Amino acid sequence: MTKKKILLYGGKKAEYLVNYEPGKRIQTHLGVLTLPENLEYGEKLETHIGKSFFVLFPTTRELSMRVKRTTTIIYPKDAGYMVIETGIGAGSKVLETGTGSGALTIILATIVGPEGKVYTFERREEFFNNAIKNVVDAGLDDRVEFHHKDPAEEGFDIEPVDAAFIDVPEPWTLVEPVYEVLKPGHVWVSLSPTIEQVQKTHEALKEAGFIRLKCVEILEREMLIRPGKTRPKERMISHTGYLTFAWKVKIDKG
Amino acid sequence: MTKKKILLYGGKKAEYLVNYEPGKRIQTHLGVLTLPENLEYGEKLETHIGKSFFVLFPTTRELSMRVKRTTTIIYPKDAGYMVIETGIGAGSKVLETGTGSGALTIILATIVGPEGKVYTFERREEFFNNAIKNVVDAGLDDRVEFHHKDPAEEGFDIEPVDAAFIDVPEPWTLVEPVYEVLKPGHVWVSLSPTIEQVQKTHEALKEAGFIRLKCVEILEREMLIRPGKTRPKERMISHTGYLTFAWKVKIDKG
Amino acid sequence: MTKKKILLYGGKKAEYLVNYEPGKRIQTHLGVLTLPENLEYGEKLETHIGKSFFVLFPTTRELSMRVKRTTTIIYPKDAGYMVIETGIGAGSKVLETGTGSGALTIILATIVGPEGKVYTFERREEFFNNAIKNVVDAGLDDRVEFHHKDPAEEGFDIEPVDAAFIDVPEPWTLVEPVYEVLKPGHVWVSLSPTIEQVQKTHEALKEAGFIRLKCVEILEREMLIRPGKTRPKERMISHTGYLTFAWKVKIDKG
Amino acid sequence: MTKKKILLYGGKKAEYLVNYEPGKRIQTHLGVLTLPENLEYGEKLETHIGKSFFVLFPTTRELSMRVKRTTTIIYPKDAGYMVIETGIGAGSKVLETGTGSGALTIILATIVGPEGKVYTFERREEFFNNAIKNVVDAGLDDRVEFHHKDPAEEGFDIEPVDAAFIDVPEPWTLVEPVYEVLKPGHVWVSLSPTIEQVQKTHEALKEAGFIRLKCVEILEREMLIRPGKTRPKERMISHTGYLTFAWKVKIDKG
Repeated sequence: MTKKKILLYGGKKAEYLVNYEPGKRIQTHLGVLTLPENLEYGEKLETHIGKSFFVLFPTTRELSMRVKRTTTIIYPKDAGYMVIETGIGAGSKVLETGTGSGALTIILATIVGPEGKVYTFERREEFFNNAIKNVVDAGLDDRVEFHHKDPAEEGFDIEPVDAAFIDVPEPWTLVEPVYEVLKPGHVWVSLSPTIEQVQKTHEALKEAGFIRLKCVEILEREMLIRPGKTRPKERMISHTGYLTFAWKVKIDKG
Repeated sequence: MTKKKILLYGGKKAEYLVNYEPGKRIQTHLGVLTLPENLEYGEKLETHIGKSFFVLFPTTRELSMRVKRTTTIIYPKDAGYMVIETGIGAGSKVLETGTGSGALTIILATIVGPEGKVYTFERREEFFNNAIKNVVDAGLDDRVEFHHKDPAEEGFDIEPVDAAFIDVPEPWTLVEPVYEVLKPGHVWVSLSPTIEQVQKTHEALKEAGFIRLKCVEILEREMLIRPGKTRPKERMISHTGYLTFAWKVKIDKG
Repeated sequence: MTKKKILLYGGKKAEYLVNYEPGKRIQTHLGVLTLPENLEYGEKLETHIGKSFFVLFPTTRELSMRVKRTTTIIYPKDAGYMVIETGIGAGSKVLETGTGSGALTIILATIVGPEGKVYTFERREEFFNNAIKNVVDAGLDDRVEFHHKDPAEEGFDIEPVDAAFIDVPEPWTLVEPVYEVLKPGHVWVSLSPTIEQVQKTHEALKEAGFIRLKCVEILEREMLIRPGKTRPKERMISHTGYLTFAWKVKIDKG
Repeated sequence: MTKKKILLYGGKKAEYLVNYEPGKRIQTHLGVLTLPENLEYGEKLETHIGKSFFVLFPTTRELSMRVKRTTTIIYPKDAGYMVIETGIGAGSKVLETGTGSGALTIILATIVGPEGKVYTFERREEFFNNAIKNVVDAGLDDRVEFHHKDPAEEGFDIEPVDAAFIDVPEPWTLVEPVYEVLKPGHVWVSLSPTIEQVQKTHEALKEAGFIRLKCVEILEREMLIRPGKTRPKERMISHTGYLTFAWKVKIDKG
């Protein structure tokens, strides 16, 4: 087991994402689990009162959704779409701001891999420190460069990047700085909860030399597949944010 | 420009994904474009009648959605979600079946990168040959192993994989073969258009030693952001398929 | 004020649907309201601690959603669609089963008016008695005929009706009895939470001489319109039930 | 058969809404139908080449959706919701503007019945004349009062109404005139395709003495129930308009 994190699964309401160490004792609400030597994914464990847990590989969803949160975080439905639409993959160099709780940082770091790089920026110190802890804890900090500053004021000052992921309250203040470091022909994506943020961002992008703007929202609906009783779940999250995509092109700013 | 593909953008209805070669002439419906030496992403070109085109980086969406199709293909909204939920990233080894038109193959190949591997299986020869062409054309075949056989009958016979992506009409026939090659604790995902397919797949998964089943559908809704006239687009694709996720665990098959 | 009910509105979290009587004292969590003589809709009242309440006309939504519930009830989004799709209006004679908490009964009674008729059937006594109380309380019982019996066993035994509204766990058991009392060329509608219920109902309807079957679900999404912060609400009800519509035609049952 | 309209149904792609007259010949694309004496709903007819048609009761959906259109029209999903949320029913007196093609007029006229009244206003002559024809053709004009004028300029000058249905491009221009004729405590509803229209309408409503504002959108998704192949339809209408509801209360206008 190269990864240090495991997801302990004892049923829908008994899930624990923990760092694996042999001999470690985990207090669950189904009893105490003691982690054995040479634990492997897929194994079944028992608590001291005989309840079963399975050891699961923690997917990117688990690693990102279960960070210690100091901010709202991005959802897999949105992050996954952003990954495909920006065209990033193994080896990509990407820009992220703000770091927030590091949930998207973890997703991006998984995608770009050890040959890639995530440059992430956060201006608020309390968020910055928590995010670093979260990314280190996920074992992904080798490919992440953390910057504690406000790029709207100070700029980015990094190498050209393959894509820019913007999750701040005022994305329009970052359009010009991002234009400076995003490779020509490549993609900006920002996530904003409100229509007015989207409108201001669109205006700023069009003025700055971005084209082919697109705005979408992604909805996730769960289906309950139970023998004889199949139906959609009764409640869902109906809004996280609007995603704005834009392509940077070279323009005469004469 | 290391990638050989470019997306030529002359407006919403004038988009062309082409292989770049200096001197190549592209017939668009806005006139003829002649590709110059040393073309770079982000540049502006003009057709012989003076219409503008921009040279854009072809994102994973463009590479996958614009393949030559012999089958229905997966959508970015679904593929992106599958990537995050399975936890794959740079370096992952993944199984895909069926290859279809190679759209998902291209997405997976981008994500796993040159250090990863996509084992893809297709039983129908006409699909197989077209898919290979599409993946080669996208420049991603170095990390893809194409298998022309029916795994439901013959099994997979590959190294253990980090995730399995199943897009066939009868996913339940692949549950046992996938169980053999999927690493314990890792994730199965299948895409099926109908409820009955999902129901049969769930039954088979539960019987075979998969747990923590989840079924979702992902919806994408476009917003039109126009000054003074912001609104959702009037029509949308309301169904592609249901996504079924399940975790393989070790069971006594005594 | 001919209607005896009023909706007292003191803000989003201070809404009270009450029967109006002069001098009545209402304990709200914003203080005590004393209802004056000759109260009219639209007036402003004050509690003993000076908090404002407005007297609103209780719409069909309020009357139906605020009944005393012994069952799940139908939502306005579904009921409204059913009204338009069945073609009922002032003067229609309609069949409803089961009565449940009487929420749909109240809606139908409002639509058909004093010249119309709602024949409603409920087999469980505790539901039956509560529903009658709710409909009487809404002042709509003059046009409602309550039947305490199980029509799947005993049939309906009423005059021919213009539409049939079916909200029971096993709609397929009512297809034959409804065929007997529904006017030819008119519409059946049933509401069912699960796919399997819908499937069985469709089969039974097709066998019994119903045609032009349609199944839809209706989703309601709230938008928050706040200056500078417009966005969809973050959570929503994602499923109440599927609506099945079918037209009865004359068939040879030789 | 008291109603003169019938819906002839010869399959999904062979539907005809016609005025019934004995002996009338209908050219369908499945052959010629000759309407017999004493035709009744539910009967089966045959074309001259032996194709079957059924005679169906034309529901409010059919009557409203199949009007001759000179404008976009309201959808049943929206209209049904508006009916329940405004609380109208048999006997209600309602205001509508603009009349458009008369689709909503037909819906409202069905709901309020012969004891009710629909006051409808349209300023554009070509729409006005077509709408009258459509409502007359549906046999519902006895309860409709058509006004050819612009209420934003000239006011409404009618008796107090139980609800106001506003479907014009600039609803905010009607807020003051509607306040004059809407009964206190009763409901305004407007339908607008864009966010900006909704925002301006909300502002105007709040200023004019309306409270308890709510904005929703209603989505309709069709399910295809086919043995072994149940799934949602692949495409849907994803936007018609936002519905804004507000309650008029008495205010001091100093």
